[in-house]
Amino acid sequence: MRAQRVELFVCPTATPADTAGLQKLVDSGKIKPDTLVALVGKTEGTGFHDDWGRVWADVALRDWTSKFLGVPVDEVAKHVIFVLSGGCPGVITPHIVAITREWIEVPDKDVEVGKDKRMVVGRAGSDPIAPEEVGRMGQIRKVAEATRHAMTDAGLTDPKDVHLVMVKVPGLTTSSISDAESRRQTVVSHDLTFGPEGAGAYANDAAALGVAMALGEVPESKLSDDVVRRDWDLYSEVAMTSSGGEKRHGEVVVFGNAASSRSAVRIGHAVTRDFIDAEGIRDALRSAGLSFSNGTPSPEELTPLVHVFAKSVIPGSDRIRGQRITLLDDADAYQIGKALGGMLVASVTGRTTNYVSGGERNSHQGPPGGNIVAAVVRAEG
Amino acid sequence: MRAQRVELFVCPTATPADTAGLQKLVDSGKIKPDTLVALVGKTEGTGFHDDWGRVWADVALRDWTSKFLGVPVDEVAKHVIFVLSGGCPGVITPHIVAITREWIEVPDKDVEVGKDKRMVVGRAGSDPIAPEEVGRMGQIRKVAEATRHAMTDAGLTDPKDVHLVMVKVPGLTTSSISDAESRRQTVVSHDLTFGPEGAGAYANDAAALGVAMALGEVPESKLSDDVVRRDWDLYSEVAMTSSGGEKRHGEVVVFGNAASSRSAVRIGHAVTRDFIDAEGIRDALRSAGLSFSNGTPSPEELTPLVHVFAKSVIPGSDRIRGQRITLLDDADAYQIGKALGGMLVASVTGRTTNYVSGGERNSHQGPPGGNIVAAVVRAEG
Amino acid sequence: MRAQRVELFVCPTATPADTAGLQKLVDSGKIKPDTLVALVGKTEGTGFHDDWGRVWADVALRDWTSKFLGVPVDEVAKHVIFVLSGGCPGVITPHIVAITREWIEVPDKDVEVGKDKRMVVGRAGSDPIAPEEVGRMGQIRKVAEATRHAMTDAGLTDPKDVHLVMVKVPGLTTSSISDAESRRQTVVSHDLTFGPEGAGAYANDAAALGVAMALGEVPESKLSDDVVRRDWDLYSEVAMTSSGGEKRHGEVVVFGNAASSRSAVRIGHAVTRDFIDAEGIRDALRSAGLSFSNGTPSPEELTPLVHVFAKSVIPGSDRIRGQRITLLDDADAYQIGKALGGMLVASVTGRTTNYVSGGERNSHQGPPGGNIVAAVVRAEG
Amino acid sequence: MRAQRVELFVCPTATPADTAGLQKLVDSGKIKPDTLVALVGKTEGTGFHDDWGRVWADVALRDWTSKFLGVPVDEVAKHVIFVLSGGCPGVITPHIVAITREWIEVPDKDVEVGKDKRMVVGRAGSDPIAPEEVGRMGQIRKVAEATRHAMTDAGLTDPKDVHLVMVKVPGLTTSSISDAESRRQTVVSHDLTFGPEGAGAYANDAAALGVAMALGEVPESKLSDDVVRRDWDLYSEVAMTSSGGEKRHGEVVVFGNAASSRSAVRIGHAVTRDFIDAEGIRDALRSAGLSFSNGTPSPEELTPLVHVFAKSVIPGSDRIRGQRITLLDDADAYQIGKALGGMLVASVTGRTTNYVSGGERNSHQGPPGGNIVAAVVRAEG
Repeated sequence: MRAQRVELFVCPTATPADTAGLQKLVDSGKIKPDTLVALVGKTEGTGFHDDWGRVWADVALRDWTSKFLGVPVDEVAKHVIFVLSGGCPGVITPHIVAITREWIEVPDKDVEVGKDKRMVVGRAGSDPIAPEEVGRMGQIRKVAEATRHAMTDAGLTDPKDVHLVMVKVPGLTTSSISDAESRRQTVVSHDLTFGPEGAGAYANDAAALGVAMALGEVPESKLSDDVVRRDWDLYSEVAMTSSGGEKRHGEVVVFGNAASSRSAVRIGHAVTRDFIDAEGIRDALRSAGLSFSNGTPSPEELTPLVHVFAKSVIPGSDRIRGQRITLLDDADAYQIGKALGGMLVASVTGRTTNYVSGGERNSHQGPPGGNIVAAVVRAEG
Repeated sequence: MRAQRVELFVCPTATPADTAGLQKLVDSGKIKPDTLVALVGKTEGTGFHDDWGRVWADVALRDWTSKFLGVPVDEVAKHVIFVLSGGCPGVITPHIVAITREWIEVPDKDVEVGKDKRMVVGRAGSDPIAPEEVGRMGQIRKVAEATRHAMTDAGLTDPKDVHLVMVKVPGLTTSSISDAESRRQTVVSHDLTFGPEGAGAYANDAAALGVAMALGEVPESKLSDDVVRRDWDLYSEVAMTSSGGEKRHGEVVVFGNAASSRSAVRIGHAVTRDFIDAEGIRDALRSAGLSFSNGTPSPEELTPLVHVFAKSVIPGSDRIRGQRITLLDDADAYQIGKALGGMLVASVTGRTTNYVSGGERNSHQGPPGGNIVAAVVRAEG
Repeated sequence: MRAQRVELFVCPTATPADTAGLQKLVDSGKIKPDTLVALVGKTEGTGFHDDWGRVWADVALRDWTSKFLGVPVDEVAKHVIFVLSGGCPGVITPHIVAITREWIEVPDKDVEVGKDKRMVVGRAGSDPIAPEEVGRMGQIRKVAEATRHAMTDAGLTDPKDVHLVMVKVPGLTTSSISDAESRRQTVVSHDLTFGPEGAGAYANDAAALGVAMALGEVPESKLSDDVVRRDWDLYSEVAMTSSGGEKRHGEVVVFGNAASSRSAVRIGHAVTRDFIDAEGIRDALRSAGLSFSNGTPSPEELTPLVHVFAKSVIPGSDRIRGQRITLLDDADAYQIGKALGGMLVASVTGRTTNYVSGGERNSHQGPPGGNIVAAVVRAEG
Repeated sequence: MRAQRVELFVCPTATPADTAGLQKLVDSGKIKPDTLVALVGKTEGTGFHDDWGRVWADVALRDWTSKFLGVPVDEVAKHVIFVLSGGCPGVITPHIVAITREWIEVPDKDVEVGKDKRMVVGRAGSDPIAPEEVGRMGQIRKVAEATRHAMTDAGLTDPKDVHLVMVKVPGLTTSSISDAESRRQTVVSHDLTFGPEGAGAYANDAAALGVAMALGEVPESKLSDDVVRRDWDLYSEVAMTSSGGEKRHGEVVVFGNAASSRSAVRIGHAVTRDFIDAEGIRDALRSAGLSFSNGTPSPEELTPLVHVFAKSVIPGSDRIRGQRITLLDDADAYQIGKALGGMLVASVTGRTTNYVSGGERNSHQGPPGGNIVAAVVRAEG
């Protein structure tokens, strides 16, 4: 049978348009046109709607990938998925992670059941999502279906083996709202921001619920338009989602572990129970198989750690462990919230090259007040 | 002989003008007019120059203290030292710590040498500091002298027993600069901010070097006007300083441990080696006598922890452990830098009621890139 | 018959808690407990949700007024209406306007019809507004009714004589939303901000439509829940509204001109046609009876100008006179939008003590893209 | 003799990297490789140090120009001067102005003295400016000399004919400071920002004084290192300067009017007397020959206006016409100050495509509190 060999390469970037690290990987033969499946990264800049650092990075990376693959820029997305999260406030180093997947022929007898599971990755696109479906059941169902297809592509059947699902879905725009309303359809919000009632927040959260539905984290019977951004007890522990107005359909990348995998790396995940819960970060490292003798890993014990992907959603409550915080009132909460997640992760991983996205207030990505953390660790064998 | 019994009471505040927690302490007999020596706290608001939350808190607290002590508002400062640090971005709970000092008569024979040392506190004012001395040797020497007097007031002779020195000094104002220049004196800077060349930063840093000189952390021979904010290898590990234009002389509060003390609490300190060094926070807890079996304290093991006082000065370099961060370029660096210190402390202490001040770039308060942390722990006996 | 004599006194303030200017007016006999009807002002600070400058000003002013009137603080609002708008970015001088109304007995024969009309003021409270009514028809109708009552109190019958209606209404809070939902009622938004879909914006805009309904600017037949913050062609040209969670009912102050008035001042208003329309400001001055020979008033010609009240709502479109602006994407748009209104007014009035509130995006307060401006001018006779 | 024909083309841009407007000018034959002398524009983004919008625009424009001229990117600066000012807060439309200069052979007899003067442009580079000269007399003298050369290139001899001098000079960087200090030289500041004592501010202001010296606005005898950013009574009324660490020498572009010019456009300038002085903007229009019958130009009368170049330096005082403003205390002052200048200009010119740079506090570019405004108008003949 065919088995996957997945690898991650972390490239710090010196400017938004810096592709030198990627080129070096190409030059050394570590990534090839037919193995590169995703570029996931943090781009420097404000992280706001008009963050030109992110836009420039996107343009420069697609241009580079187009040349690398030898395909036109507008076909790049068919081959490589881009997940660029804007804003590196605080102690988050701008970086790009190149994720490669190689297919290896393995004799069937060598694929032992019960063997040490290793990392696999799978991708799928969803059916087109209409503006009136954004942030609602239509989107939830389409993302759920795409998640199932991506699991199949990854060779995963048990949701327990899934540790991270990155999703990109269409958001709403002035023109897509006009389109829907001209057809006498309503939309979930006229607020185009990622604020509490913003279309961006609804799109991200419906996508998270779609993942939760596909993985059985939330039964379909509990889902409806009315629960999105209302019933915070419904959530996924592995979905990291983003949305952009320009897209027409969703894209899903599933990361998990499989016995058949021939990867040198393993993925795990956990959730923090609240905004200051460093133990949740350590749990994610443990879940990925990092072992540390003491309560917190030493620099040496952190050597096998390849990368951490974390959300830093701001809690909806103004209390942490019973005490009031003023973050919800803070005009800079969006940036500060993201920065704080970066510190929580860096203070445990001992490094600043962590993928941390967030800053929005409340989400179905992770439990109320807590956040999702996934870690990739190099296995010993 | 007379021995000190020092106690700390942490009161979270619901608004900048909230004195309910203090009043409750008074009503229950825990603080009395002749035992209250200092009010140290974090006030909510932006933390910027025009932060009205801090100003309102200052007015309301002085008013309350005036009534409590039965003295006019403008004499309150003779009895109680106020250290209010503005800005609670992120996970810093607005709060006031009331510090009391009671004098107890102890038979001389009961003051054993070598006994478990406990917390003491001492205060002193400096000679008036002229505008042309601010940020220069004049200020350094006067703060050093006041620090020695405050040690004497605390009953401390060995600098090793000093774990925290809070200092407030005059800054520069438009009018004090005019005054100096009318007398043909120069001033250290015309920039009234806390920016890299700001008078506020110079005043704070000269105060820190004054403490370092008094404690022998830096020999006087190495000190001159030219080293202030230039030679970062000269620093104090225990000085937390602030400055305000309206003051004429410096105020110093020394916190340490003494064998003669009859306090139930003990103080300790450490420094972080860089901006993400959670181990430095844990070292401060250990220094104060908190014991934890594993690498990081559990919630139960944190019970004896009374309070943490920490600085969060932004590193002067754009590298942390070899990787680039963009914090120095960030327009919100002042708030984000303070918020990150709050997270580093809270993720270890498991609580948000920590005193964390900072946000300025580079300082003689702590080593280059690192920060000062002091902790107070309730002793068992 | 009884006739009004209305006067306005503009007091710049040195700090949020500065009541010295008001006290001076009292000491000189210009304002008396039974003539003070409203305090309207701009307070320094960020203007954000947690702007402690505004809160401190509110507390200090109510305290001062309580002492001035000799009534308890919680009864002050029955006698004097407070409209404090937070945030003085740019060229807006923090200030308080004391508005007084004296009743004078005038022989009926002296009240000539067709005489030069002068300023009058009227006030009224609305019926309690339930959380589920906020931002909806319930609120619109109750504000409309209160506006009619305030007109009666002012002695005005013709809507054309109304030039400014200041309204304060309840907003939504976490607890009022819970209250409504516990009674199985829905609320207009769960977003408690003044963002595009925020409850604050809905409350303000429904209040503006209530004024528009009372004055016949919008026929009741065109009003419904669905048009609020949707149909921007419905608007008032005289309503300036604000909302706060703590209130239970609305308060309305109507400013207009009446033939019976014995005031020395006259009010007028106009709207700007877009965000850079200085001519709209000049039109308001002309409407209030300020005469200037040339296209723009000279400093001397501005002498009779007493005060300007202006909104500075950010346009919903990213185009001004055909060219793109990036204000809608700006993270600081709220403050910049308010600051720009301050400049537009100050560059015409030649002074910075103007009341300018705003910063929200789109509103039924004024036409799409334009803003409301009211001016008070001292009449010659 | 050879005579100049200068033209300006204003191209609004849709994104930082948008060169479509320039390409259209090329396609229609309006700009040619040998006539393009400068690209001056406003780029969207924050305008801060790490504004990637400005950086991306710079990269994209140099790349486009390189292809247009057929020269390598690193030689583009020899042919075309780029002045890109970052940040379009408020009502400033992102745009690029292409400035072309054509040389025409004109019979000497046709160059009448006393004829209607029209626009000319001249350029010159300065000698290399060492780090220790930045912000000091060394830089002042070198910029003065380059200004004289640029006047010669423009064909101007009388300083009264000079209406705008755009200058770019080297700033300081960490490495250039190290270089200077390794040679035992001091530098003007270690603060690399544009704050009150920042190296960027010193570099800009010394450049302005260099222009003032060349034009005789300030006699050389009054100039010394000590007056830079100290004696605000010394200033230029036509210098708009900027600095960047990467440069080694200064670049100067002089704009003025000459009788020999065959341009269709004319330039003029004025200064505002304070931050709200709309009359100063109108004076600049008048100076450029725009005629308007009334006090302020009507839309029709504005038709011949080609472009306005304005500074918006924040006043060093907290008073405008006797009243306090809080701008100096505002954390967003840099952006708000620039935005306010944009509004002052737009409210007079009736358009948003104005070049407005600024936001720094105090400058030798213009009188204390006031700002420089230059206008270009199409002449009738």
